[in-house]
Amino acid sequence: MTDTLRADGRTPGQLRPVTIERGWSKQAEGSALISFGDTKVLCTASFTNGVPRWMTGQGKGWVTAEYSMLPRATNSRSDREAVKGRVGGRTHEISRLIGRSLRAVVDFKALGENTIVLDCDVLQADGGTRTASITGAYVALADALAWGKERGFIGKKAQPLTDSVSAISVGIVAGEPMLDLAYVEDSRAGTDMNVVVTGGGKFIEVQGTAEGAPFDRDELNTLLDLALIGNAELANLQQAALAQDLAGE
Amino acid sequence: MTDTLRADGRTPGQLRPVTIERGWSKQAEGSALISFGDTKVLCTASFTNGVPRWMTGQGKGWVTAEYSMLPRATNSRSDREAVKGRVGGRTHEISRLIGRSLRAVVDFKALGENTIVLDCDVLQADGGTRTASITGAYVALADALAWGKERGFIGKKAQPLTDSVSAISVGIVAGEPMLDLAYVEDSRAGTDMNVVVTGGGKFIEVQGTAEGAPFDRDELNTLLDLALIGNAELANLQQAALAQDLAGE
Amino acid sequence: MTDTLRADGRTPGQLRPVTIERGWSKQAEGSALISFGDTKVLCTASFTNGVPRWMTGQGKGWVTAEYSMLPRATNSRSDREAVKGRVGGRTHEISRLIGRSLRAVVDFKALGENTIVLDCDVLQADGGTRTASITGAYVALADALAWGKERGFIGKKAQPLTDSVSAISVGIVAGEPMLDLAYVEDSRAGTDMNVVVTGGGKFIEVQGTAEGAPFDRDELNTLLDLALIGNAELANLQQAALAQDLAGE
Amino acid sequence: MTDTLRADGRTPGQLRPVTIERGWSKQAEGSALISFGDTKVLCTASFTNGVPRWMTGQGKGWVTAEYSMLPRATNSRSDREAVKGRVGGRTHEISRLIGRSLRAVVDFKALGENTIVLDCDVLQADGGTRTASITGAYVALADALAWGKERGFIGKKAQPLTDSVSAISVGIVAGEPMLDLAYVEDSRAGTDMNVVVTGGGKFIEVQGTAEGAPFDRDELNTLLDLALIGNAELANLQQAALAQDLAGE
Amino acid sequence: MTDTLRADGRTPGQLRPVTIERGWSKQAEGSALISFGDTKVLCTASFTNGVPRWMTGQGKGWVTAEYSMLPRATNSRSDREAVKGRVGGRTHEISRLIGRSLRAVVDFKALGENTIVLDCDVLQADGGTRTASITGAYVALADALAWGKERGFIGKKAQPLTDSVSAISVGIVAGEPMLDLAYVEDSRAGTDMNVVVTGGGKFIEVQGTAEGAPFDRDELNTLLDLALIGNAELANLQQAALAQDLAGE
Amino acid sequence: MTDTLRADGRTPGQLRPVTIERGWSKQAEGSALISFGDTKVLCTASFTNGVPRWMTGQGKGWVTAEYSMLPRATNSRSDREAVKGRVGGRTHEISRLIGRSLRAVVDFKALGENTIVLDCDVLQADGGTRTASITGAYVALADALAWGKERGFIGKKAQPLTDSVSAISVGIVAGEPMLDLAYVEDSRAGTDMNVVVTGGGKFIEVQGTAEGAPFDRDELNTLLDLALIGNAELANLQQAALAQDLAGE
Repeated sequence: MTDTLRADGRTPGQLRPVTIERGWSKQAEGSALISFGDTKVLCTASFTNGVPRWMTGQGKGWVTAEYSMLPRATNSRSDREAVKGRVGGRTHEISRLIGRSLRAVVDFKALGENTIVLDCDVLQADGGTRTASITGAYVALADALAWGKERGFIGKKAQPLTDSVSAISVGIVAGEPMLDLAYVEDSRAGTDMNVVVTGGGKFIEVQGTAEGAPFDRDELNTLLDLALIGNAELANLQQAALAQDLAGE
Repeated sequence: MTDTLRADGRTPGQLRPVTIERGWSKQAEGSALISFGDTKVLCTASFTNGVPRWMTGQGKGWVTAEYSMLPRATNSRSDREAVKGRVGGRTHEISRLIGRSLRAVVDFKALGENTIVLDCDVLQADGGTRTASITGAYVALADALAWGKERGFIGKKAQPLTDSVSAISVGIVAGEPMLDLAYVEDSRAGTDMNVVVTGGGKFIEVQGTAEGAPFDRDELNTLLDLALIGNAELANLQQAALAQDLAGE
Repeated sequence: MTDTLRADGRTPGQLRPVTIERGWSKQAEGSALISFGDTKVLCTASFTNGVPRWMTGQGKGWVTAEYSMLPRATNSRSDREAVKGRVGGRTHEISRLIGRSLRAVVDFKALGENTIVLDCDVLQADGGTRTASITGAYVALADALAWGKERGFIGKKAQPLTDSVSAISVGIVAGEPMLDLAYVEDSRAGTDMNVVVTGGGKFIEVQGTAEGAPFDRDELNTLLDLALIGNAELANLQQAALAQDLAGE
Repeated sequence: MTDTLRADGRTPGQLRPVTIERGWSKQAEGSALISFGDTKVLCTASFTNGVPRWMTGQGKGWVTAEYSMLPRATNSRSDREAVKGRVGGRTHEISRLIGRSLRAVVDFKALGENTIVLDCDVLQADGGTRTASITGAYVALADALAWGKERGFIGKKAQPLTDSVSAISVGIVAGEPMLDLAYVEDSRAGTDMNVVVTGGGKFIEVQGTAEGAPFDRDELNTLLDLALIGNAELANLQQAALAQDLAGE
Repeated sequence: MTDTLRADGRTPGQLRPVTIERGWSKQAEGSALISFGDTKVLCTASFTNGVPRWMTGQGKGWVTAEYSMLPRATNSRSDREAVKGRVGGRTHEISRLIGRSLRAVVDFKALGENTIVLDCDVLQADGGTRTASITGAYVALADALAWGKERGFIGKKAQPLTDSVSAISVGIVAGEPMLDLAYVEDSRAGTDMNVVVTGGGKFIEVQGTAEGAPFDRDELNTLLDLALIGNAELANLQQAALAQDLAGE
Repeated sequence: MTDTLRADGRTPGQLRPVTIERGWSKQAEGSALISFGDTKVLCTASFTNGVPRWMTGQGKGWVTAEYSMLPRATNSRSDREAVKGRVGGRTHEISRLIGRSLRAVVDFKALGENTIVLDCDVLQADGGTRTASITGAYVALADALAWGKERGFIGKKAQPLTDSVSAISVGIVAGEPMLDLAYVEDSRAGTDMNVVVTGGGKFIEVQGTAEGAPFDRDELNTLLDLALIGNAELANLQQAALAQDLAGE
């Protein structure tokens, strides 16, 4: 790998600057404004005591997620899905991915009959909005769980989180495997992969797509290697953010 | 008026702290993140050269606006309008108000055949989201017009803005007329009025509603007096924000 | 003011001929076909014993309203909102205005756990459809309340109406303040205001909009004066209509 | 047949009182407020010079129809289809029936490239709304065609109407064949049939449905006989209405 | 009638080859893949113990139907109704016809509080999809009822079916009355009629439409004669199909 | 691996019986009814000369796909998406996957300005509906391309297919890696992966999801090995199906 390949000067295996503003929202039980470079996502976690009717009485909770983009998050304005009257396929797909990813680190018995809705709203988009969403939603989720514990909705000794979770994109751009693609890189990528990993380094979701030419086993392996490195870094950043005191608590 | 009536220590005629972060978005031609206390609205202005087909060839431009709230902007989570598949009446009403208010200070001949879409997305709500939206949208609009002028889409000597515009809420809470109601005040207000005013102090829109008892002419007059004072202050803040250099330009 | 300014020969402060056909519908508990000149609105009030589930057990009733226009009420045909699959912003806004206006004169405790839905369907439109709707809906509401009392759904001594309510439009056309604008006047109006007033002469709603140039305090005051005069006349007409015996009762 | 069977005193083969208020609407090119007893339908015909794009250049016109009921046309209020966001099956079915029925008496070549939209809005319903709609829509259509001829959109010698068209319901109630069912009869009918017939006595549409027991050939024949008698009477009433001078022309 | 008029060599009074693959679906309680020539419809009957809430406690069941076409069932592809977000008028109309037709041969008391949903999905269309749907749905319904009886949801001695039901189209093509129109014939038919008949030869539904010229009483009678012959044949085919052992039972 | 683990007697690495009925539809330019055991999907390819407006003039074609399930394809009936008025997230996600997968083996320059829509309608579902869809859609696509070549819409020497494509699911059930999961296995799988592979053995899409516990690199590798074996077999079956003469051509 050459070191100077990327528009923003990053090395192929380097993340963009990642910042996590925990507790950004005064209204939500947990929240984080996360940035992966110019990609900014506001993640909120809404804690409700109780579960949907079809789950009542099983002693288990539920976690779900919704993803959306502001109309001018991107370079040219998109119509609002509310105005179009329907949620688009891409939005649905990403909402489902975020939900599955976060549920994979939650012990629903330990959560008890509580529901958490994660909202990931992209305020500004520059590639990697789904991976930033998952990574930020974990921080919001952790805070909402702490909130629920403090108020007694979750048992004192319950450990609803089995691990942390983060996600990063990797891809092959101009023949070069790269970590954390910005939009300009993503749109040129021949292969594009989103990898969701636990803090312990196991896979929760691997989604690789050949945008141009099909990819082979070696390329797949190289990309997975990169993704594990990037996610390890993100796990540290999440841990650091959660170690700080929350302002105003 | 007593000075110590309000929960946050304000006098009845005092605005909440107002901040305007101009150029918040790297993607939009104009943008402002505006706060009225804990109410935070991201306003973007999207500039498009050209107008909708039905307006072509008239030498005139168009300005339109859309307002929305993030699902967890408020104290309890609301369902997304995109998920419900329809835009609600309140959203429609406020979108239309913002559009009318901004159009009132635009000379469409001077704008030429260009279209500007204003998006006001409430990131956090604590009362006054529509008035903050109008006030912030003006700043975003001004910057988008400057952008269009620099690129030659608007004539060099054209003055598409005829004045500035801002808006503030006033209301009678527990018998006391007050400026810039926070949510807790708004929900207790007997009469609630939103007043949109030009920088020159003329009315663009007056919307007064008796939530409890009907109001009389004197109360109406007192509220209008308060609103004119508040809007004059907002006009100064807008002017100050627009006088600064935009970072990164 | 000159006396001969208006297309239909009215003086600036003169209402169009107003007729109220009470009990037009054999099906509804209360109804009125109201005309303001060529504007004709069929107002029905549907009385239901009981309230929506979220209100049960509070001993209070509810009043709500829906407004709509027949597709060919206007000079050129509009698509039906049912066919488009969504209620438009203007329709939503007016429905909400009618609901708020009528609720302002109802004592929900006295109404008891009963629900009244007001439907205002514009059969023919020539300006002032929302003001005719409010004025006619009051008559339909009064009859539906009488119906509910006769059948014992409302207590014998209960007074669910605290006052009457009517509405009229005023505006500045070619520099001249005018009452009850017909469509041709409305579309030329620089300022347009809808004023909802109780029988007692207090304000329920004031909605003034600068369609052209912003308006000043003096103009606002002149318009409010005109509106109060017009509404006083409407209150008399409502009273007269309600004083008659209902055919077929 | 006994003479005194029916609630309103009609004989089995007798129509309800039918009235046709031609030119009810000042806005539409043709209109009729038609009553079959307490069933009242406002029919408007909107004339547009030109045809939908997919028909352009063929020298032929088009006629289409939309049917709807006001929410409180019936004994208990129905939700608006616009509010539900979709047109119901029954509405669709009747709109299509009206359109087919009217198109059957139009010569599209003689109409030329003009479009007519028929709107049938039921203001009050007491059975037979679809048959009253067809019968009234014919009058509105005839007037709209005359309007188009006067203004030169239709050739001077063109005869776009090949015949008149009317419709009536027939049914077997308590074993007795009856003409023009009121709602209370319709809901008890074992067999229910709507028959659309030209002025010349030929069938355009026959829709017979066994609501209770299946029906045999004899019953079918008796019902068709009744329907032809009723439609002949309606054809006379249409002719009489169209023979009068239109007020205000 | 000449014998050699039709494209596929049929005589005017001859059905296309009809096949009924009973038990096609492993998932549904009753099913049939029915062919009328190249028209192929998959009919499934879904049996649910219980009825919708509004029917509970009356000791009666319910039968309903939904019809749909695959997007490429026809010669040119249609947009999916799910993608368009609304069910079209034709689909609604046919779904309602199928439901009414099948309900006409069901004794709801004998069915008990059970619900059967009939789904008729057109896999390939060549005219007569609604008549094939009704004819096939009857077979699926009979099997679902047998299924319910075996499992004790329907009383042992109950006879929920009062008769069989089938349907066929008839029409006048180039002046010649014909049975079971294929698409190419249907699109040229001057009059088109769908006739739903019980096994006992009585009418459930007669829907005749003049597509071109209106039709007279004689033509109507000839068409009804043809339809009764065709339906008698279909009733035999249904009986034969139901007489066979179901594979895998 | 033990050989007798699976309900249907398969070994862990064994596909279910796969059948491909090519040319099932008389209407579509290409079609295949494909079965993976009890999963049956009707795949049609609709060929249109021309491309959407936004692609015109670039000399390139387009391929898109839509997936849907009949309401009673599954063990319990689902509501139709057309009736619900919106396409669900899962449907969207799978439609997009099928489209991407097929596009990956198409050379759009060689296709020329032609559009192919692939419809995959699940008639019966027993796990693996998306993989059967992709595998069958390839056969339909190949036939539609041949159709387009014969008619001269595609150049004589053009090779629009760069490879074949198939897909298979793999998963870890009760600790055992398995190929081609039936529904009962899929619902018990801890990890579930869909792998789309070219005939040449390269990856087009890898979608692995931890339904229960996260998975590690070794498990991922074992699953990929299995998937490559299964897809090689499917590629042979596709080739064999395409080698046969199409009936009726």
